[in-house]
Amino acid sequence: MPEPTPVTFLGLGNMGHALASTALAAGHPITVWNRTPSRTTGLAEQGATPAPTPAEAVAATDLTLVCLLTDETVAEVLAPVAESGALKGKTLVNVTNSTPEQARQRASWAQAQGATYLDGGIMAIPQLIGTPHSYIYYSGDEQAFTTHRPLLARFGDPRYVGTDPGLASLYDMALLTGMYGLFTGAAQALALIRSAGLPTTDFAEQLQQFLIGMTAAPAAWGKSLDADTHATAVSTIAVNHAALPNLLATHRDQGLPVDLLTGLQPLLDRAIAEGHATDGLSRLAELLTR
Amino acid sequence: MPEPTPVTFLGLGNMGHALASTALAAGHPITVWNRTPSRTTGLAEQGATPAPTPAEAVAATDLTLVCLLTDETVAEVLAPVAESGALKGKTLVNVTNSTPEQARQRASWAQAQGATYLDGGIMAIPQLIGTPHSYIYYSGDEQAFTTHRPLLARFGDPRYVGTDPGLASLYDMALLTGMYGLFTGAAQALALIRSAGLPTTDFAEQLQQFLIGMTAAPAAWGKSLDADTHATAVSTIAVNHAALPNLLATHRDQGLPVDLLTGLQPLLDRAIAEGHATDGLSRLAELLTR
Ligand SMILES: NC(=O)c1ccc[n+]([C@@H]2O[C@H](COP(=O)([O-])OP(=O)(O)OC[C@H]3O[C@@H](n4cnc5c(N)ncnc54)[C@H](OP(=O)(O)O)[C@@H]3O)[C@@H](O)[C@H]2O)c1
Ligand SMILES: NC(=O)c1ccc[n+]([C@@H]2O[C@H](COP(=O)([O-])OP(=O)(O)OC[C@H]3O[C@@H](n4cnc5c(N)ncnc54)[C@H](OP(=O)(O)O)[C@@H]3O)[C@@H](O)[C@H]2O)c1
Repeated sequence: MPEPTPVTFLGLGNMGHALASTALAAGHPITVWNRTPSRTTGLAEQGATPAPTPAEAVAATDLTLVCLLTDETVAEVLAPVAESGALKGKTLVNVTNSTPEQARQRASWAQAQGATYLDGGIMAIPQLIGTPHSYIYYSGDEQAFTTHRPLLARFGDPRYVGTDPGLASLYDMALLTGMYGLFTGAAQALALIRSAGLPTTDFAEQLQQFLIGMTAAPAAWGKSLDADTHATAVSTIAVNHAALPNLLATHRDQGLPVDLLTGLQPLLDRAIAEGHATDGLSRLAELLTR
Repeated sequence: MPEPTPVTFLGLGNMGHALASTALAAGHPITVWNRTPSRTTGLAEQGATPAPTPAEAVAATDLTLVCLLTDETVAEVLAPVAESGALKGKTLVNVTNSTPEQARQRASWAQAQGATYLDGGIMAIPQLIGTPHSYIYYSGDEQAFTTHRPLLARFGDPRYVGTDPGLASLYDMALLTGMYGLFTGAAQALALIRSAGLPTTDFAEQLQQFLIGMTAAPAAWGKSLDADTHATAVSTIAVNHAALPNLLATHRDQGLPVDLLTGLQPLLDRAIAEGHATDGLSRLAELLTR
C-alpha cells in the first residue's frame, strides 16, 4: 500500500465537497480552496488545510483536482495561479463540466504552463461519490491517470477512454444528453398528471419502474446502428408516428406547453417520408447523423 | 376455475397478435379479424376462428378486444359493426392508443350503440405481453373490468384506475411522455457518439446502466411536487443551467441538430429568472403546470 498522495481541491460546491471529503476519509492529506471560504470550515475541522488563494492551494501539493461550475470559472480561477508560475510541474485533474473542445483547449493551455493535464467527466450525483454506483471517465495524459489511479478509484470506477483530452467530455456529454431526455420527459409526464389534479408521488414511482423497463430499447439501438439494420417486430416508426399526435393533443387539452416534445414529430415525419415506416426507432439516431 | 370466456380480437398487428396468441394459449376460444387477412393464418392453425368481417367477428362472442392503430381506425372499423346492430349488448375493451378525450367520446359512442365500454392503456411492448413485466391500465365500466379480470390478467397486471374512461389513457400518455423523453435523449446521445466515428454497441449498454441509475431523480420529484418543496443538495437548477449550453455546443460542434433538446433551455432560463436557481429539477414540472 503506497502512502496516500497529498491533493489540492479547487471548488467545494456540492460535487467538489463530495470529492474532497471522500479523499480526506480515505487518508489523503488535502488542501482546499473555495471562493466562498465558509465552505472549507467543515473539512478543516476534519483535518483539511484551507488555503487563502488558489495559487497557494496549488503550490501546496503536486496534484490539484478542479471542480468548478464551468470552464469559464476554471479560466478565471486558474489565471492568477498561472501568472504566479505555480502550475509548473504540477498535475491538474479537471472534472468541471465542459465541451470536448473546451477540454482540448484547457489541456493545451495547461501544457503551455508546464502542467500535466487529465480531464474527467463525473457520471454520478454527489451522494453517489465513493459508492459502487459512481464512475468517472478520464482522458488526456495516461501517465497521470495511472499514477493517480488509487486516489481516482476512491471517487468511483475510473474509466480511461483515451489520450485525446476531449474524449471524457464527449462520453460525459452523450450520457448527459440521455439524462436530459429522460428528465425532460419525466418533468412533462409529472406535469400532465398534476394538470389533471392528481397526486404525483405514487405515479412518479410507477414512472420509474416503467422507464427502467423501457431503457432496454435504446440499449439495443447501439447494435442496430453499428450493423446499420433497423428492422423491428417491436415498435415501428409508423406506430410511433401515429401515437405521437395523441400525446401532444393530450398535453394541449390539459393546457400544457408541448415545445419540450415537439422536436420528435418532424424527425418521425422525416423517417416516414424517407421510407422507414417499418423500421424501429434506432433509425432516428441514424437519421440524426446522416 | 371458470371456463375461459370466448373473445374476439379486432386488429392483429404486433400488439393485437401478442394479445390474441396469449388468450389462445391460455385456453380462451378466440375469433379474429384483421384488415390484412394473412395475419390470421398462424393463429387459425392454432385453433382461432377467423371472421370475414368485423361485424361477424363481433357477433361471434360477447367480448371484443380492439387493438388497432389509432382512434380513427377504430371508428372506421366499428362503423359497419354499429350499423349492423351487432354491438348491442356486447362488451368492448379498447386498448388502441388514444387521447383521454378520444377515449371518453368512444365510450359515449359505444354506450349509444348499447355496448359496455372499457378503455385500456398497454404499458408493455408486444414481447412482454403475458410476462410479469407487462401491465395495463383500465378505466370505464368497472363491472366489465371485474367480470373479465381473469382474461385481462393474462396479458399483464391489470390496473383499474377509475370510471372516467379517459383515465387509463391519461396515465398511459403520461408514461409514454416519459418514454419519449428517454427515447429522444437516447437517440441524440447515440447520434453524438456515432458522429465522432465511435462504435455505439458498448456505449448503448453503458447508457442504459447510467439511465437506470438516473431514474431515481424523477422518482423523487413526485413527492417534491405533492409537498411543493423543491430544495436540493444534489443538482440545482443553476448547475444544470450552466451545463446545458455545453451540451448543446457539443452537439453543434459535431454537426448535429439540437432542436430535440432546445426546449429545456428556455424552461431553465425561466426557472432562474423566477428565483429558483438553488431548487432541484422537480421545479420544472411545477413551472410547466403553473
Ligand atoms: N451536482 C451534480 O450532480 C454533478 C454531477 C456531475 C458533474 N457535476 C459538475 O461538477 C461541477 C460542480 O458542480 P456542483 O454541483 O458542485 O455545483 P455547485 O454546487 O453550484 O458548486 C459550484 C462551485 O463553483 C464555484 N464557483 C462558481 N462560480 C465561481 C466563480 N466565478 N469563481 C470562483 N468559483 C466559482 C462555487 O463557489 P462558491 O461556493 O463560492 O459559489 C462552487 O465551489 C459542475 O461543472 C457540474 O456540472 C455536477
Ligand atoms: N407495439 C407496441 O410496442 C405498443 C405498445 C403499447 C401500445 N401499442 C398500441 O397498440 C396499437 C397497435 O399497435 P401495433 O404495434 O400492433 O401496430 P401495428 O403492428 O402497426 O398494427 C396496426 C394494426 O392496425 C390495423 N390497421 C391500421 N390501419 C387500418 C385501417 N385503416 N383499417 C383497418 N385496420 C387498420 C393493422 O391492420 P393491417 O395488418 O391490415 O395493417 C394492424 O392490425 C396502437 O394503438 C399502439 O399505439 C403498441
